[in-house]
Amino acid sequence: MPETGVSSVAVNGRTYRAPEQPLVVLCIDGCEPDYITQAIEAGSAPFLRRMCEQGTSLLGDCVVPSFTNPNNLSIVTGAPPSVHGICGNFFFDRDSGQEVMMNDARYLRAETILARFSQAGTKVAVVTAKDKLRTLLGSGLRGICFSAEKADQANVAEHGVSDVLAIVGKPVPSVYSAELSEFVFAAGVELLKRQRPAIMYLSTTDYVQHKHAPGTPAANAFYGMMNDYLAQIDALGATIALTADHGMNAKTDAGGRPQIVFLQDWFDRTLGAGAARVILPITDPYVAHHGSLGSFATCYLPPGADVADICARLARVLGIETVLPRAAAAVRFELPPDRLGDIVITSERLCVLGTTPARHDLSGLDAPLRSHGGLSEQRVPLLFNRVLRDVDPARRLRNFDVFDLALNHWPGPVKPAAS
Amino acid sequence: MPETGVSSVAVNGRTYRAPEQPLVVLCIDGCEPDYITQAIEAGSAPFLRRMCEQGTSLLGDCVVPSFTNPNNLSIVTGAPPSVHGICGNFFFDRDSGQEVMMNDARYLRAETILARFSQAGTKVAVVTAKDKLRTLLGSGLRGICFSAEKADQANVAEHGVSDVLAIVGKPVPSVYSAELSEFVFAAGVELLKRQRPAIMYLSTTDYVQHKHAPGTPAANAFYGMMNDYLAQIDALGATIALTADHGMNAKTDAGGRPQIVFLQDWFDRTLGAGAARVILPITDPYVAHHGSLGSFATCYLPPGADVADICARLARVLGIETVLPRAAAAVRFELPPDRLGDIVITSERLCVLGTTPARHDLSGLDAPLRSHGGLSEQRVPLLFNRVLRDVDPARRLRNFDVFDLALNHWPGPVKPAAS
Repeated sequence: MPETGVSSVAVNGRTYRAPEQPLVVLCIDGCEPDYITQAIEAGSAPFLRRMCEQGTSLLGDCVVPSFTNPNNLSIVTGAPPSVHGICGNFFFDRDSGQEVMMNDARYLRAETILARFSQAGTKVAVVTAKDKLRTLLGSGLRGICFSAEKADQANVAEHGVSDVLAIVGKPVPSVYSAELSEFVFAAGVELLKRQRPAIMYLSTTDYVQHKHAPGTPAANAFYGMMNDYLAQIDALGATIALTADHGMNAKTDAGGRPQIVFLQDWFDRTLGAGAARVILPITDPYVAHHGSLGSFATCYLPPGADVADICARLARVLGIETVLPRAAAAVRFELPPDRLGDIVITSERLCVLGTTPARHDLSGLDAPLRSHGGLSEQRVPLLFNRVLRDVDPARRLRNFDVFDLALNHWPGPVKPAAS
Repeated sequence: MPETGVSSVAVNGRTYRAPEQPLVVLCIDGCEPDYITQAIEAGSAPFLRRMCEQGTSLLGDCVVPSFTNPNNLSIVTGAPPSVHGICGNFFFDRDSGQEVMMNDARYLRAETILARFSQAGTKVAVVTAKDKLRTLLGSGLRGICFSAEKADQANVAEHGVSDVLAIVGKPVPSVYSAELSEFVFAAGVELLKRQRPAIMYLSTTDYVQHKHAPGTPAANAFYGMMNDYLAQIDALGATIALTADHGMNAKTDAGGRPQIVFLQDWFDRTLGAGAARVILPITDPYVAHHGSLGSFATCYLPPGADVADICARLARVLGIETVLPRAAAAVRFELPPDRLGDIVITSERLCVLGTTPARHDLSGLDAPLRSHGGLSEQRVPLLFNRVLRDVDPARRLRNFDVFDLALNHWPGPVKPAAS
């Protein structure tokens, strides 16, 4: 049994039992379930097949917007964005008139399960692909926390570990590569061998999934690579709990041309130029693989705008799936209303939302657009190398139940929290 | 210009101009748009790439239930099932207490575009993969109409053609094979060469799509095969108009296990055994590739049942997407209310609807279940080897607009109907 220093912790209204074996939770970015299904079918993922057949395979719903940061934070807090506050890569601050990046821990409104365990004496390690997530995931954490992107800069004072490149035996990968995620898996295996943390959280990037459909050679190669690292983690005696931040769908016509509703153009035509401000919370400094095009948007309307009328008109636009006023969207999607615009919009499965053509650089798209953000990317795997117990089949599972499932539904019943 | 015998015809409220070049309309069964996208990406479909780049590529919505027969009949009538009456493979006749197959022309309530042109003197040919569609598609038709499945039985009196195997140069294919669809394409090419019909309708089967995801080797091979026949049709000077009856989605968890809501079980628990009758209109004699599992069902309730309460309760069941009373379903999905149960149900993208486990034989499933029937399979390609004119970008296109697009939006404006 790993030294956890505590028998359980309570975080955001739930109690989590300390692990009896090292627990490795993986958030596989953009892991539409079919990626795993097809890799197994192709014979590329024999260990994943074993997990499905001999462990536990479930599906759960991620948080909408089905984006990376809201879902990673939901997973590590065990709670939706209405609790932790991170509902996208940035929000619009009406007072300052500024768009504010939410990748700083001061925007996080809840404690993480990782931080709480680490503060109770449990050895915790976190490895992310991109550095943008590291600060948020490492909030309050006393342990190891670094990114593959800046692995060469990891030091004991700030990241709880140094000499990462030597430990992993790999160079710093390109931020646009499958190798960025492979570095995360490789680091996880080495940390498990050398430091044996009781809880480890590994979070990859969806560079491959944005470019390659399930079952295609590059996708199968990625999941084959992942399969081999997971088999090593299993052989080291760890419990594996795998989920995803969101799924992934084609967003094009049959010819691979992106299907885009340009919302800022629509609002400019409808309300006058610049009267409304469309925010696409997928936007971040790394856009080459999706051109800031996802299936979720929020819009700030001018004072006195007729919200109900605008919602009704926008809902009739081809490609739009749902249009909700702020309050209804906050309830339905469990989002913090103070970080939403006046209306929230999702687009249909094969369609994305943009602002205006000039503001989307699609020159980096060297494959037909695949993206996420909407309701159609909500279903994600919940996959374990253990047989879970007492999971109610009528329970709507969420990706942010993954710690609850791994810790409280295996192998024994949950005990009262220590605090 | 082909001999059409007429300058235009009016059918079901729309006028269709006679073609100036031979028109070949293809209904590619289960053609989720990504099949074409991925085949192009893999280099398997250079002619389809050319159609997308130099012709016209659009997306449209098929009819829900996104099943084969309702959509084939919608395409050839240019109208939804509320007009033509075919809303599934069978319906339940409450008076007789029998489930009635709807593959006989007497259930068809509207004339087809094909029949109308043929009666006006236009040379028309129809080739279907399975024989179950032949009678419906050939209703009122004076021309060629046969199935690949029973190609050896085609004779002039009944099918307008004989010696089909000699013409095509292929044996009768298995009903469960990619070759069944290949026979349709091969027959189309030979008919175009030998008889040069002015209008040809080719309808394939989704055997490959039920088993293989877009971009996988077997799917790319199928679309590569199709690509080569389409290139031949193009070289023969025909206008090509390609659409689909429905899309296709994985219906499993990550491990490939089908995600099924057993509705008859649910109703038996809720209302008492046998009180309600669940109808799965996907059911037909050919079930090995989908086990009668699709994403659409209708249910006949006992007299006095509280429809609103049952709808509300069923809508909360995991995997269910929409539950509508008959009248609302008939309006929303444009279906004939007299052939619907008291409520209509669709399931979520990765989930199908069953009756009870004993009534679904999954032994024929040798690949993870992929199926259709719901809203998530509604988007289909509308692909032409010509540049269309005057297509309103705000128009919600349907697959059953394919004749309108091919005949009235290329190359000149529509003229008044001859009758």
